[in-house]
Amino acid sequence: MIDGLDETHDASRRSFVASANDPDGDFPIQNLPLGIFSRGPNGRRGVGVAIGDRIFDLAGARHAGLIRSVSGDAIGQDSLNALFALGNQQLRLLRKEVSRLLDEDPAGQATRDALAKCLVPMSECTMHRPTDVANYTDFYAGIHHARAAGALLTPENPLPANYKWVPIAYHGRASSVQAGGGEVRRPLGQRPPLQAGGAPSFGACERLDFELEIGFYVSGGNALGDPVPISGAASHIAGYSLLNDWSARDVQRWEMFPLGPFLSKSFATSVSPWVVTADALMPFRTAAMPRGDGDPKPLPYLWNDDDQANGGLNIDLEVSLSTAKMRKANEREVRILTSNARYLYWTPAQMVAHHTINGCNLKAGDLIGTGTISGPSDAELSSMLEFTKGGTQPVTLPNGEKRSFLLDGDRITFRGRCRCDGFSSIGFGLCVGTIISERQTPN
Amino acid sequence: MIDGLDETHDASRRSFVASANDPDGDFPIQNLPLGIFSRGPNGRRGVGVAIGDRIFDLAGARHAGLIRSVSGDAIGQDSLNALFALGNQQLRLLRKEVSRLLDEDPAGQATRDALAKCLVPMSECTMHRPTDVANYTDFYAGIHHARAAGALLTPENPLPANYKWVPIAYHGRASSVQAGGGEVRRPLGQRPPLQAGGAPSFGACERLDFELEIGFYVSGGNALGDPVPISGAASHIAGYSLLNDWSARDVQRWEMFPLGPFLSKSFATSVSPWVVTADALMPFRTAAMPRGDGDPKPLPYLWNDDDQANGGLNIDLEVSLSTAKMRKANEREVRILTSNARYLYWTPAQMVAHHTINGCNLKAGDLIGTGTISGPSDAELSSMLEFTKGGTQPVTLPNGEKRSFLLDGDRITFRGRCRCDGFSSIGFGLCVGTIISERQTPN
Repeated sequence: MIDGLDETHDASRRSFVASANDPDGDFPIQNLPLGIFSRGPNGRRGVGVAIGDRIFDLAGARHAGLIRSVSGDAIGQDSLNALFALGNQQLRLLRKEVSRLLDEDPAGQATRDALAKCLVPMSECTMHRPTDVANYTDFYAGIHHARAAGALLTPENPLPANYKWVPIAYHGRASSVQAGGGEVRRPLGQRPPLQAGGAPSFGACERLDFELEIGFYVSGGNALGDPVPISGAASHIAGYSLLNDWSARDVQRWEMFPLGPFLSKSFATSVSPWVVTADALMPFRTAAMPRGDGDPKPLPYLWNDDDQANGGLNIDLEVSLSTAKMRKANEREVRILTSNARYLYWTPAQMVAHHTINGCNLKAGDLIGTGTISGPSDAELSSMLEFTKGGTQPVTLPNGEKRSFLLDGDRITFRGRCRCDGFSSIGFGLCVGTIISERQTPN
Repeated sequence: MIDGLDETHDASRRSFVASANDPDGDFPIQNLPLGIFSRGPNGRRGVGVAIGDRIFDLAGARHAGLIRSVSGDAIGQDSLNALFALGNQQLRLLRKEVSRLLDEDPAGQATRDALAKCLVPMSECTMHRPTDVANYTDFYAGIHHARAAGALLTPENPLPANYKWVPIAYHGRASSVQAGGGEVRRPLGQRPPLQAGGAPSFGACERLDFELEIGFYVSGGNALGDPVPISGAASHIAGYSLLNDWSARDVQRWEMFPLGPFLSKSFATSVSPWVVTADALMPFRTAAMPRGDGDPKPLPYLWNDDDQANGGLNIDLEVSLSTAKMRKANEREVRILTSNARYLYWTPAQMVAHHTINGCNLKAGDLIGTGTISGPSDAELSSMLEFTKGGTQPVTLPNGEKRSFLLDGDRITFRGRCRCDGFSSIGFGLCVGTIISERQTPN
């Protein structure tokens, strides 16, 4: 058995929640992702586990005496921060306990009745931001994206000279991270002058874009001044979500020199509400992206044989678009691209080791994005900027509509799915956002 | 009387706390800055007001029935977030109430005795980070710094083309913001290759620097999607601290293209522990930096006549250095530069309006830095990078020591002071940090 696997990964395990046994479902008993839910939009928020089309209410289960592996303090919260602060060993114990409880054959009728009371139909619930994000960092580890976007934004230097040495990143805006599902307001801002030395124009962003990323959440954390070594970095990752790094390309091009993106990103970042734990992803680990012949070997603080062998993730990703016109005509969304998380030049563990090498303190619940994950082929370019070549080659949708960038009413949906022979397939659920028009200019 | 002034600014007002009446002191009754203190390093944290050499314990005063203007919830916290969430009108009422209580002639002997019980000697207290910083943004509004640093870091383009249109900023690291007074560990990191195309080296930062800035804290806040208009922006600023944006110049030069500074800044940011309220600074408002003949008029969302007339701040700033050798010889620190907050190209209100124009939500307690405030003369260059010309012209200290950048044991102290005819001078207290050596490289 592969290191880290246990009975929770056993493909033969089935749940007494019938919908969890659908082989095409995202949430079989082998997944058990964590999230924050409420019954209705204004209900009390609590920690839940997705199982089929139900949410298992952890606080309720603890109150009923079903959960004993973690304290009530850690799961009686309106965010996952306290739970993630316990660290991955505790998360693993909780996973084993929940897996046993939701098994096809839980112990005794009394338990079955008590469990049923803790299962809520997902369709009756509202999902919220998984953690109270105190710090959000976004990397730039998708090398195919860096090359493609670099060729458009800074053609004189498509792949930065530091790229293969430094896991490049910037701090993002924590306050505007939101659970996918809602609306995203088109930002106002300064758009670049039409010619060098000219005046910028002001108004609604005209080049609104998405970026397909994976986000991960910190567990445990480290004290200020104490770097996390690469060998222990993976144990600081609680789990993963899909992440949409909405981007205002016109604002970005004008504002970003010399200190990087700011308002072009800070208006919204969407995450899928379910956090697929690092444990659930164990079977889908894969080798890190191999270095090419001319590539430098990274510095020792970023290099670890085990991480190179197992630190990558094999997650199929896809992006769909539905326009307002399509929805009015009852037409289905169209898939516009696919990609895979394995197209990352740096592993999540390398990101953690780099982030902390200067002593920076990560805190439980912090969110870290990987950067846009494009693949090598034209069908795997993971932003509008890339697949419309900077807006110069609009894409034509099946109903005849054309898009260079996103228009009001456009709805973007991300999906993620893991598949591996011998294991149950698991999914991430959806990360959805619908563009709405800008506010009037304030006075 | 100038708009916004009231009896709390009256220069003739004196306090019954004798040390507050020292004309050279930072904390007369006209100041009344807010901070988080504890009795001893591990005592319970609470909200305090500095008065002379004493701290007025607000939670204690409320418990004694002396404070009635704000709820116990807002001041019974271990950070200023809840108090700042009430907004500036409430902060003004609290200021008036505290000013009356600490007056030379408070009402009656009973009150005087009750007040005395709420006054703690500052020397017995430990100061902490004023707010639980959920979001930290750093601007680049010091135009003399932008020119001087730009000439060294990006000589081909010292002042970016967007500089006079865009209040440039980047997101900083919130978790490593700390109250000045403690130690700052020299970061490890990648240092740039000696020649283009070469390999970076790894080790302790060799070009460690400070940056002299002002920081301000958000009061109230705005909802996601709702920009704050320039006319109302000043009312979203609770108060100001000194801010040291510690910088690893070698790491910065290598990592910052294309997404901006990351590890070169995120190891530590120090703030002075006392927040001088926007109300206390009313008499020291001044005109914004005038635009030169060739300068563009900023876009309307950044432009407001009242802000241009009164949105600047006249705060004298200075930086002192003490080395380990100097302290061993009982030699006094040396002042290495002076500057003034009026050397900012963008006002704090313009920063708030810009920050939110895309709908980004500011939250009470968020910290916003102005960027390094250098002046036009050689004695006003507010980082080592600038006044040693990128380390090529080391400065010689009175005891013969030379410095290009900071060495272990160096202690940097910031001071800020406001002076204006007809008003009591007020100060910011100190923002201090002492450099300690790096950790060993993790494995």
